[in-house]
Amino acid sequence: MTVLGLGPMGQALAGAFLASGHPTTVWNRSADKADALVAKGATRAATVADAVAASPLVIVCVIDYTAVRAIVDAAGDTLTGRTLVNLTADSPDRARELAAWAAERGVDYLDGTILTPAFTIGGPNAVLLYSGPEATYQAHRATLASLGGTATHLGADPGRAAAHDVALIDMYWTAVSGIVHGFALAGAEGIAAADLVPFAQGIAGLLTTTVATFAEQLSAGEYPGHTSNIQSAAAGMAHVIHAAEARGIDTTVLSAARAIAQQAIDAGQGKDSFSRLAQRLQPPTTA
Amino acid sequence: MTVLGLGPMGQALAGAFLASGHPTTVWNRSADKADALVAKGATRAATVADAVAASPLVIVCVIDYTAVRAIVDAAGDTLTGRTLVNLTADSPDRARELAAWAAERGVDYLDGTILTPAFTIGGPNAVLLYSGPEATYQAHRATLASLGGTATHLGADPGRAAAHDVALIDMYWTAVSGIVHGFALAGAEGIAAADLVPFAQGIAGLLTTTVATFAEQLSAGEYPGHTSNIQSAAAGMAHVIHAAEARGIDTTVLSAARAIAQQAIDAGQGKDSFSRLAQRLQPPTTA
Repeated sequence: MTVLGLGPMGQALAGAFLASGHPTTVWNRSADKADALVAKGATRAATVADAVAASPLVIVCVIDYTAVRAIVDAAGDTLTGRTLVNLTADSPDRARELAAWAAERGVDYLDGTILTPAFTIGGPNAVLLYSGPEATYQAHRATLASLGGTATHLGADPGRAAAHDVALIDMYWTAVSGIVHGFALAGAEGIAAADLVPFAQGIAGLLTTTVATFAEQLSAGEYPGHTSNIQSAAAGMAHVIHAAEARGIDTTVLSAARAIAQQAIDAGQGKDSFSRLAQRLQPPTTA
Repeated sequence: MTVLGLGPMGQALAGAFLASGHPTTVWNRSADKADALVAKGATRAATVADAVAASPLVIVCVIDYTAVRAIVDAAGDTLTGRTLVNLTADSPDRARELAAWAAERGVDYLDGTILTPAFTIGGPNAVLLYSGPEATYQAHRATLASLGGTATHLGADPGRAAAHDVALIDMYWTAVSGIVHGFALAGAEGIAAADLVPFAQGIAGLLTTTVATFAEQLSAGEYPGHTSNIQSAAAGMAHVIHAAEARGIDTTVLSAARAIAQQAIDAGQGKDSFSRLAQRLQPPTTA
């Protein structure tokens, strides 16, 4: 197959195909990114069109869908009759747009998302999600299995993998923003990052339970706040904001989170579980 | 001992002392909160001063330090010569203020924080941190062990337990704000909360590794961005923001997080690990 885009993830994808014995053609805007892969047996293509022409299955993994469009436009008609698997992360509507673009040109299209870091690719811990036509997925399932780990086909809607992805990177990067802020606050209080690790990992473990509890409450449409409620959460956030302000540390992220909690309190939902906010954040048409 | 404040956590604390066979006096502003504890053998005090007079060891656990001050002021001189263990969550400077208040009145003072939910109290999973004079901690360590789990004395600075607490609740509530937002975004895309759980729990697991990696980078003062950098994080956040805006969902929290990442990118640190932001967030005097 062909792999377009050789950032850390693209290199990992091409490397996994090569390791599984698949003849692999690679292309990158900066050609030297292919050097290590060529040394492992990959074929370097000089242009996108040459790369696409080399294989019936074309994988693209770049920074965003704008970059994907620039690449597939450069392929011209060469993609017609082939399968394009787009593993670039972006938003669901852009996945659907690209699927429509592919359909107009007779290109079979799968949109996929990779939930684990590049170093997991080809190994047992990789997690990949795909969406798009079932037949297209089944036709390439065995080949895509070279990428390792667990792969799930989420259905025909090409936006569904990206929808999972944005929800999950939302959770991840918001959490990681809290992690760096917590380390900063601890550091300002003279607590070394290493000393905080065991407790911070306890917090990460607690989130596993929180996710499951909140999902149950959202499914039931009931938000009992017996053990923890929005009001106590807002009080906790206020302590953090106070402590950060006392140390001259930016508080914009948690202040925004607290404002959302405050809206619920003002609406008389302060004694509800914090999961209530997921219901409140959804627009009325989809809630 | 005496327990002042019978919210869910105060009730759990008093219940654990009773279960360990300690004579326990309780007080709460709304006296009926003591009913279940009295049924288990607790003594109900009519006033704070009566409650304090009943025991050499007094535990207070209420909504914040303003509430603690109102309660200890109501105790008058009764606290003098006793030990006050304050398990109320608030900020480190307020813990230090209260320690100074106690010292002026001849009250031995420990400040503590409880990192796990009320239902863990008395069981193996409770995690408690204490700070304040070593001798005071050692004098009550065996009694406080009735609260269960693991207890750590962090040293003499009375603000140190609260400093750990604010850093950790910063991480927790920022992350939980991301969880409810991710569920909202998934819901708006037609993904049921229950369907997202296994993947969201994978994200929570990934955070355990992220915490350890970031702490190593912060300790070393080096922020290599080989596998993931600020620029790719900001691109991911932009996809989420785009997707949320398309569904009419509030984006203030992640937009604030992205603005902090953008400042680092503008400063030429876009290729650094996201852990760099913890160093950037710290004020120059403590960094």
